Amino acid sequence: MGLTGIRNVCKVSLDIPAGKQPQLHNRWHPDVPFAGTIKNGETVKIECVDWTGGQIGNNDSADDMKTVDLTKIHYLSGPFEIETAEPGDVLLVEIMDVQPFEDAPWGFTGVFDKSNGGGFLDEIYPTAAKAIWSFEGIYCTSRHIPHVKFAGLIHPGILGCAPSAEVLATWNKREGELIAANKLDRIVAQPPNETNVHAGSASEEIKAKVGREGARTIPGRPEHGGNCDIKNLSRGSKVYLPVHVKGAKFSVGDLHFSQGDGEISFCGAIEMAGVITINFKVMKNGMADLGMKSPLYLPGPVEPHYGPGRYLTFEGFSVDEHGKQHYMDVTVAYRQTILRCIEYLRRFGYSDYQVYLLLSCAPVQGHIAGIVDIPNACTTLGLPMDIFDFDISPTGPAKKLDMGSCAFETGVKEGKITQGGKNSEYSWGGGLTYKEGSASAVVENLKEKVVGS
Amino acid sequence: MGLTGIRNVCKVSLDIPAGKQPQLHNRWHPDVPFAGTIKNGETVKIECVDWTGGQIGNNDSADDMKTVDLTKIHYLSGPFEIETAEPGDVLLVEIMDVQPFEDAPWGFTGVFDKSNGGGFLDEIYPTAAKAIWSFEGIYCTSRHIPHVKFAGLIHPGILGCAPSAEVLATWNKREGELIAANKLDRIVAQPPNETNVHAGSASEEIKAKVGREGARTIPGRPEHGGNCDIKNLSRGSKVYLPVHVKGAKFSVGDLHFSQGDGEISFCGAIEMAGVITINFKVMKNGMADLGMKSPLYLPGPVEPHYGPGRYLTFEGFSVDEHGKQHYMDVTVAYRQTILRCIEYLRRFGYSDYQVYLLLSCAPVQGHIAGIVDIPNACTTLGLPMDIFDFDISPTGPAKKLDMGSCAFETGVKEGKITQGGKNSEYSWGGGLTYKEGSASAVVENLKEKVVGS
Amino acid sequence: MGLTGIRNVCKVSLDIPAGKQPQLHNRWHPDVPFAGTIKNGETVKIECVDWTGGQIGNNDSADDMKTVDLTKIHYLSGPFEIETAEPGDVLLVEIMDVQPFEDAPWGFTGVFDKSNGGGFLDEIYPTAAKAIWSFEGIYCTSRHIPHVKFAGLIHPGILGCAPSAEVLATWNKREGELIAANKLDRIVAQPPNETNVHAGSASEEIKAKVGREGARTIPGRPEHGGNCDIKNLSRGSKVYLPVHVKGAKFSVGDLHFSQGDGEISFCGAIEMAGVITINFKVMKNGMADLGMKSPLYLPGPVEPHYGPGRYLTFEGFSVDEHGKQHYMDVTVAYRQTILRCIEYLRRFGYSDYQVYLLLSCAPVQGHIAGIVDIPNACTTLGLPMDIFDFDISPTGPAKKLDMGSCAFETGVKEGKITQGGKNSEYSWGGGLTYKEGSASAVVENLKEKVVGS
Amino acid sequence: MGLTGIRNVCKVSLDIPAGKQPQLHNRWHPDVPFAGTIKNGETVKIECVDWTGGQIGNNDSADDMKTVDLTKIHYLSGPFEIETAEPGDVLLVEIMDVQPFEDAPWGFTGVFDKSNGGGFLDEIYPTAAKAIWSFEGIYCTSRHIPHVKFAGLIHPGILGCAPSAEVLATWNKREGELIAANKLDRIVAQPPNETNVHAGSASEEIKAKVGREGARTIPGRPEHGGNCDIKNLSRGSKVYLPVHVKGAKFSVGDLHFSQGDGEISFCGAIEMAGVITINFKVMKNGMADLGMKSPLYLPGPVEPHYGPGRYLTFEGFSVDEHGKQHYMDVTVAYRQTILRCIEYLRRFGYSDYQVYLLLSCAPVQGHIAGIVDIPNACTTLGLPMDIFDFDISPTGPAKKLDMGSCAFETGVKEGKITQGGKNSEYSWGGGLTYKEGSASAVVENLKEKVVGS
Repeated sequence: MGLTGIRNVCKVSLDIPAGKQPQLHNRWHPDVPFAGTIKNGETVKIECVDWTGGQIGNNDSADDMKTVDLTKIHYLSGPFEIETAEPGDVLLVEIMDVQPFEDAPWGFTGVFDKSNGGGFLDEIYPTAAKAIWSFEGIYCTSRHIPHVKFAGLIHPGILGCAPSAEVLATWNKREGELIAANKLDRIVAQPPNETNVHAGSASEEIKAKVGREGARTIPGRPEHGGNCDIKNLSRGSKVYLPVHVKGAKFSVGDLHFSQGDGEISFCGAIEMAGVITINFKVMKNGMADLGMKSPLYLPGPVEPHYGPGRYLTFEGFSVDEHGKQHYMDVTVAYRQTILRCIEYLRRFGYSDYQVYLLLSCAPVQGHIAGIVDIPNACTTLGLPMDIFDFDISPTGPAKKLDMGSCAFETGVKEGKITQGGKNSEYSWGGGLTYKEGSASAVVENLKEKVVGS
Repeated sequence: MGLTGIRNVCKVSLDIPAGKQPQLHNRWHPDVPFAGTIKNGETVKIECVDWTGGQIGNNDSADDMKTVDLTKIHYLSGPFEIETAEPGDVLLVEIMDVQPFEDAPWGFTGVFDKSNGGGFLDEIYPTAAKAIWSFEGIYCTSRHIPHVKFAGLIHPGILGCAPSAEVLATWNKREGELIAANKLDRIVAQPPNETNVHAGSASEEIKAKVGREGARTIPGRPEHGGNCDIKNLSRGSKVYLPVHVKGAKFSVGDLHFSQGDGEISFCGAIEMAGVITINFKVMKNGMADLGMKSPLYLPGPVEPHYGPGRYLTFEGFSVDEHGKQHYMDVTVAYRQTILRCIEYLRRFGYSDYQVYLLLSCAPVQGHIAGIVDIPNACTTLGLPMDIFDFDISPTGPAKKLDMGSCAFETGVKEGKITQGGKNSEYSWGGGLTYKEGSASAVVENLKEKVVGS
Repeated sequence: MGLTGIRNVCKVSLDIPAGKQPQLHNRWHPDVPFAGTIKNGETVKIECVDWTGGQIGNNDSADDMKTVDLTKIHYLSGPFEIETAEPGDVLLVEIMDVQPFEDAPWGFTGVFDKSNGGGFLDEIYPTAAKAIWSFEGIYCTSRHIPHVKFAGLIHPGILGCAPSAEVLATWNKREGELIAANKLDRIVAQPPNETNVHAGSASEEIKAKVGREGARTIPGRPEHGGNCDIKNLSRGSKVYLPVHVKGAKFSVGDLHFSQGDGEISFCGAIEMAGVITINFKVMKNGMADLGMKSPLYLPGPVEPHYGPGRYLTFEGFSVDEHGKQHYMDVTVAYRQTILRCIEYLRRFGYSDYQVYLLLSCAPVQGHIAGIVDIPNACTTLGLPMDIFDFDISPTGPAKKLDMGSCAFETGVKEGKITQGGKNSEYSWGGGLTYKEGSASAVVENLKEKVVGS
Repeated sequence: MGLTGIRNVCKVSLDIPAGKQPQLHNRWHPDVPFAGTIKNGETVKIECVDWTGGQIGNNDSADDMKTVDLTKIHYLSGPFEIETAEPGDVLLVEIMDVQPFEDAPWGFTGVFDKSNGGGFLDEIYPTAAKAIWSFEGIYCTSRHIPHVKFAGLIHPGILGCAPSAEVLATWNKREGELIAANKLDRIVAQPPNETNVHAGSASEEIKAKVGREGARTIPGRPEHGGNCDIKNLSRGSKVYLPVHVKGAKFSVGDLHFSQGDGEISFCGAIEMAGVITINFKVMKNGMADLGMKSPLYLPGPVEPHYGPGRYLTFEGFSVDEHGKQHYMDVTVAYRQTILRCIEYLRRFGYSDYQVYLLLSCAPVQGHIAGIVDIPNACTTLGLPMDIFDFDISPTGPAKKLDMGSCAFETGVKEGKITQGGKNSEYSWGGGLTYKEGSASAVVENLKEKVVGS
């Protein structure tokens, strides 16, 4: 009698390609077949692969990061049938635990190359980079970013129920309109893509349909949540998810050992494979009862807490790094806030790329402080000082420590640019990278910055 | 021996117009004369008027809110000479206390009329509205928003040192360029304005110059802080401010009894007159030593804390209320997050305007959750459940309570729109206002919404 | 309309002797006349004198501490009639604020002489000592204990409703029995005492009766609370008090700017005069409804919080400083826990008396860790590291700083004892005091210790 | 490269008797042989059996609790050699994680029979009782105490380094003196005992010596820590342990899923078998450098936190349940504090035994509030309201729920006593148990209470 173990409804292999495992899938679509059934009220374990499906290695080169195949990511575990769930219900998902696999206690944080994925600061930091993190119980450390250790606010980056056909059509329509109207010099959204589609155990016919129609997993979406990347959906949290199809078709994946608000480098959390333990409860008619259009949640009680006075806090405004005034643009403000923090930590010997990686994955607090004082939105970034093993408080000049380096593409190094006398105009010297023996790479990067500054 | 009182360097009157009091001013300009001198290391008290300079009354009508004169706001106390401060130094400002005046224990939160100031949600909530808050010690309550009580995270909305002439020129240039390029159907920034300029004790000549050149106080700005409206700069906080002119010329004002992240209704904090106690220390050469371009701060240890599990948290994405997909627009996402919370609380009997006011001033946590998952930025809003005296947790259908009403312009009421059969298309019925006996007002508001929806 | 001020029901003078002010009293007795009336639901201000009734001065000598008259203490404000309160009800007391007087921003922590009051460690630290604290807003500092600053968890040491005649008789009986049975070489309880009794505005006859029967205010008592010295009854707290007499006869006093768990030096909190703002509500039949025999409470949300990892924590067991094993004696264990902390902080240059004073008043957390593992009870003391302006974390040998001295009786100093070669046996050398030119004082203290060690 | 797993230095079996496993032991003695070697700086996993060595089953009877063999408990894993550790060093033990075994996700809390172990309240609750807890990730629930769920503050009850021969002699001397002087009608300490001694892999000769001299593991002791039962030594904590023998001889065991301050029912934590992950670092000469006589520690950052206002707090004084006044007895005060909480929760339908079990293991905060106000020590107990799934706040009469029952000895039930008319004098009716068909058992218990009341 009593609990003698928790049912594991989804075993995954880290040796078989994720695209070959039928209990995984990589599109949101109502026709992806169920990968298993869970009772209303049951607690189960669900194993997950990492969000690159195993493309990134525990090594000291970012070559794999640079060449990552972004059509082979976000393999989700599921979808699972939750008994009794019907459209209009709410699925109450309580995250009882998330753990890395015992024999793979490591994860990674990456910066994608600007030409292959990019990230929030890719105009300034265009080079692929990587940090490997080792897990020891609740804590992680990285040989690529020394002198920091912190407890993981461990959580799933992605969870949600499948869209109905109607919801899916809405998504495809509105994102298609954005793509059609795009005049920016960058990809603004990802339309359905048949390349490397994985529809679980679906027939070829269904798989082809999923490829044509299925929503990509990158963005979170208001109707179901999805890739919210909310760092606080951690152990002990309750998440209230709208149900759009019979049986809910719940999926989960993209486990993070830790993430900072914004997940700024894109592959910015500490990505890992592992197992999540979830309790499921169906709230009949919950969407109407709760007046719910989007998921809501209650965080758990075990977040790391440091006390408010231990957060060194930076401000940023919607004036960009070139001095241009934007109108109430929180995105610009948050970018500036992060740059202020990079400048601050650079003084202790960290390279810009190390800090960029660190702020993506450490439990930093990104707040929208003021959003009404035209033309300047104001955001703040709270950096917990206690994750460092030296004193970073603002008491005067900083003493530089030997901080080593994060991982770069083979041949790429960080350094100061001395040629051309142009770097006096350049404000981000600490972050420049160059390819050995290749002046052009330097010049290319440099030009970009000089033009911008 | 020992401390027998703290020097008050700035007494203000609530009876004399703020524009007549020489220890106040309402522009950022290096030529505003010193209003007093403070020693390096000294702790002083500084009295402040409320940010409307006394235009808003403790009553039950929002007529004063609708007709507020926005050229007569943000009267700051100062500027003060901080002995030994020089450009390049950092002024370490420790906020020892902020209190309302003992004989005026009240404040207000307002929604400006869309035609006179507006706010973050003015397209949906265009009508002026107001809530009066009563202070009893650390707590506040409002007869206009019943069933809530919370402890103030009391702070100054505005503090900073005067810009140098060069910094000021930068501001005027970049904001001027934004104004010149504006194609939006709204005011995007406020240029210098000679109307109602107040330059403290300046001569007429200097005052005229300040009127022509002086920066408006509405926006915070990266070079000095200013109107940051950061709710966490509360009792016990240390703020590190760049010094741009000899003697620092520190000013402070716009005291808030409480504010939510974003201060969304614009006049959204609980605005009040009162007294702030500050300790000043000069860090010589601090800007270079700290690598500082913008202020940074450390919050104090006495923030209200409720435990993470007591924050009911809403999500929003960059898909607007008309279903349009925006590209990574955090501002849109935050607007949606707030609307999700309004919908939720509306179920308990609050009107939309009451919630709009409440979220502006209660200690809600607005986070930038995900900023890299194209095309959807994700933000969250954490609402502390413990500020309500009834249970708002998501357990099922809500029981409506009698919530009375916030204050509106004379003759304006909230209600359901029944004419024209159009309201079935309208998703914000709870928030509509109409003017008694004036069908046109209703139609005007309604049209705006119907067109949009 | 709206709140324009809070009624002050009890003004006190710091210039008139407390014993002459009719709105004060210093005994618990049902016949002390009402000092005022408060409505059910009302919020009022109540001024209080400090717990010595003004005997201690803001100076650098502990002469006043040594000779304090302990029959002239604990003058309470009240008792107040709370309308509608009847025996069996519960009085819900919400502490909206506590503040020092604006023109007296200071307080004191004292060690009584062993022969006149003593304290928890008086066998080791028998000499009177004192520290004066200066208040600047939420923070306090002391010229007598440098390098510390902390936010006050400001609270009343004493609050409660008057006992009924029956309850009072119970007190006198049981405490009388303890006194009668006492075989210890110390005072174990204080019986009624007619000396310096103060019964407010009572007639001479009633005053005499109060003197004969009235309970002394030193101990807290289960039936009504009283001098609980619970450091967490701070701003924002709700206290549920049993009502024993018609009108409740609520009294309050002994305001503390801050206190550590245990208030170990007896006069151990930061004692001050000031004003408390309280809201009163009557819960009819509350004692039965809540099953209540003793007060209970809910702390407020604004306690200083530092994060658990910022509390350096010491352990103590029921083995005393002479190596003797006691059986499950938490009192012995807590004494040892405190001694461990004194030893630790002594390494940084503080004298034992300075630490003894500091631990009495700083927000240290004293926990009962284990109370079942015979024969050793275990207690812990959590010391917040962030109250120091230097690093006290356990990283290696400590660097001594110049810590000055706390205040002592005229002529008394701290120092090392070198005579007699006996101090090698003495384990508390840092804490010894001697009187200049008086070998006997040294010898007396020394003997006591040597015998003990 | 990178971490690929953490070395497990101590595998245990739950099927083989603990006394037969050579990597375990159950005495503190310097001659117990090393069970393994750990490098300075290494992180390892150590498996542990539960503290009864498997005597308690996951079932609904407390028969096993009643008859538990207390000579077969506290089997510790180790002792481990920590390389480079010498007497006088400090062993810095960082608790990276503690987990139950994946296939045994359950634990137990017990009340021992008064005649076999007893506990803090055994005079009132003399009957054996038990609650089984099921673990799902961070949370636990019990079928024996419904309507509660909480996150485990999971920790080891026992950890420490072996005593030197000198330290051991000190222990035996002082505890022997206590035993010799004992005049109480109960066991006050446990002397060395050769019955069921387990000295790991020791030779018979050494084992016999360990039996004669070895210190029992029940009490924590100041010189090394041991069975401190400090609930906060949880994940992320750093513990600083004195080293008394070469190689440190570190042992650990008695894992707790959760415990309340005091662990009041003796077998009061949620006891479990599992695995602890620890990082070890040697601080050379640490005892002198840190001025250390007893262990000290820094808690980790991930304690469950609820906010101060969510702790319903009870007070107790040193007046016992018979109305007798004790002098400054914290132990009496804490007992009263717990009784106040039992009375309060009884109103909701819980039996006294259920609450006694619950307060032993839930994360309740037990503070020493006042320890100087003669004759009454004051303690407080903070009960986190958020562990209940119904509202326990003090708002009025309680609604009783169906709370089922905890486990008792076969045939024993709880109930009201109606015979003899004596129960009107008896104040603990909710907690009485009786044996079916055995009037004597009832009478026996009843007499005990009636005599006492």
